[in-house]
Amino acid sequence: MSEIRKDPLSNTWVIIAPERSARPRTLAAKPDEEKSKFCPFCESDEIKKPVEKFAICAAEFDKKGHWLTRILPNKFPALTPEPLLCQKEIDGVYHLLEGVGGHEILVESPVHEETLATMPLKQIEAILRNYQCKYGYWRNDPRISYLSIFKNHGKQAGASLKHPHSQLVATPLVPPRVASELEEAKEYYELNNRCIICDTVEIEKKSKKRIVAENDNFVAYMPFAPRFPYETLIVPKRHSATYEEIKKGEVEGLAKMISNLFKRYDKLLFDPPFNYILHVAPLRTPGLLYFHWHIEVILRLSQPAGFEWGSGVYINSVAPEEAAKQLNKIKVK
Amino acid sequence: MSEIRKDPLSNTWVIIAPERSARPRTLAAKPDEEKSKFCPFCESDEIKKPVEKFAICAAEFDKKGHWLTRILPNKFPALTPEPLLCQKEIDGVYHLLEGVGGHEILVESPVHEETLATMPLKQIEAILRNYQCKYGYWRNDPRISYLSIFKNHGKQAGASLKHPHSQLVATPLVPPRVASELEEAKEYYELNNRCIICDTVEIEKKSKKRIVAENDNFVAYMPFAPRFPYETLIVPKRHSATYEEIKKGEVEGLAKMISNLFKRYDKLLFDPPFNYILHVAPLRTPGLLYFHWHIEVILRLSQPAGFEWGSGVYINSVAPEEAAKQLNKIKVK
Repeated sequence: MSEIRKDPLSNTWVIIAPERSARPRTLAAKPDEEKSKFCPFCESDEIKKPVEKFAICAAEFDKKGHWLTRILPNKFPALTPEPLLCQKEIDGVYHLLEGVGGHEILVESPVHEETLATMPLKQIEAILRNYQCKYGYWRNDPRISYLSIFKNHGKQAGASLKHPHSQLVATPLVPPRVASELEEAKEYYELNNRCIICDTVEIEKKSKKRIVAENDNFVAYMPFAPRFPYETLIVPKRHSATYEEIKKGEVEGLAKMISNLFKRYDKLLFDPPFNYILHVAPLRTPGLLYFHWHIEVILRLSQPAGFEWGSGVYINSVAPEEAAKQLNKIKVK
Repeated sequence: MSEIRKDPLSNTWVIIAPERSARPRTLAAKPDEEKSKFCPFCESDEIKKPVEKFAICAAEFDKKGHWLTRILPNKFPALTPEPLLCQKEIDGVYHLLEGVGGHEILVESPVHEETLATMPLKQIEAILRNYQCKYGYWRNDPRISYLSIFKNHGKQAGASLKHPHSQLVATPLVPPRVASELEEAKEYYELNNRCIICDTVEIEKKSKKRIVAENDNFVAYMPFAPRFPYETLIVPKRHSATYEEIKKGEVEGLAKMISNLFKRYDKLLFDPPFNYILHVAPLRTPGLLYFHWHIEVILRLSQPAGFEWGSGVYINSVAPEEAAKQLNKIKVK
């Protein structure tokens, strides 16, 4: 079983998950080493099993009854469901939590080579509905405080498998990056009685310098201080703290925006490695007024190095105004 | 000129440095693309210039008068020295600081292929003396609050050049990761009247489970909650907040420990990509009682992905107790 440990000096939480070192990408492997051609999302026994049609969030189907998306347990989970949850202190300085939680995979398509840039809109909509269903599912587990939904694409972005997939990690603690966003948003709300993200969207729409996409329901812009070149935020226009409350028309609008954005990234930057991460309110604080959910897209073209890891300050060689200008020149169907 | 910007939601500081996008490793380059064979630390006009022997910290020499190490300006600086320093607010939510500071390179050896594992001890000592000299140099600039000294080795660790070198970034702000360490250390000191790092070293020496090296002046151990597999801290036994006060015998002890550690990493993990970072007290707070300088070594064998970037929580698949056991089995001369 894994452990969640806290570093006494930096206060960073780390999940020690020895089960994961058996993953396909062995630690000391040489970068150009040949990888096994076996794809568990095409060929494993698990994926070949018939889908239980009535299991919650287990899959989405097309009209002919073939699966479009499927949820699988992660074969190398960082956290596992266990009955107890207990925090320990060790030697007076160290803190430890049992690795309770969940780690699942959403297989985003039956097609191995598909990407967000090539998928039909209906496929992206199915993925987005699965995310929604999963927030509802994990909300019912009182041990879980937060569900992190994210996607890694490309080796440089930490993806060990090419087949399109998202990951879902349910944790007993609210991750520090989310906690700090919540704190800032709360402080701003208490001071101004307004949402910091609603205000930022207004500023961005007025300045136009960093906007890269807009439709009825969503707006996408490059943040003023992005950690990575071409980093983009996708923000719903309707103020809402949780993704779970997304509406049908919004799912369609979001799918369209994702498809369009990734087609343009591909054309400008040749299928760049990326991560995207959903930022939402914690599961135990429903009805939160001051938070506004959003999706953070980071392209992994550059490698954070000693400076970034040691200081927590990021060096970004492409100003967001310049990156937005480049992306806005790209036209796609 | 670059800009230091703050993200309003996450409070992250980002240096927007467009000058750096002209660096050898172009952003959208394919991973297997052939790199230019030109090495600026072997062949540039700058390195061929005779060294000004009396310039502060400019170089170290051997007995025959040949240079061992040299400090050069970074050709693609993240920050540049400018007379003014002024913080601006933009549109009520954004903060901006002019990119004032310094960015230098320490060429660690005239030999292109040398690494910390192969260098003679005298060479490592020269590097360590250069670091010391540089802290003294930047302390005299009242605009500078912190000097980050770090080293990137290997492409996966963000190094764009193979020739052994360290980097020195002088910033007008104390980096957030250092600031949070200072805060934790201060709180612990106020509560216990003891140094958190001195206490941790005692705990580690007693438990022995994570210790990987020890000599008269230094101890190295893998932290209880490491962000990366095989992450190691090198800590001086003598309590001191600043590297600048390091003594001659300590430089020799540190060089020996670095040489031994990197020889063992090499044998166990085949010349792994790594970053190391010096953590010291800020330049404007001399005589700080509660801090204890140290070196953080992180091996970059795994790729932080969506989960880490979005949550601030790290998944580490090798427990430090297991990593220390593996490293302690390796014997080197």
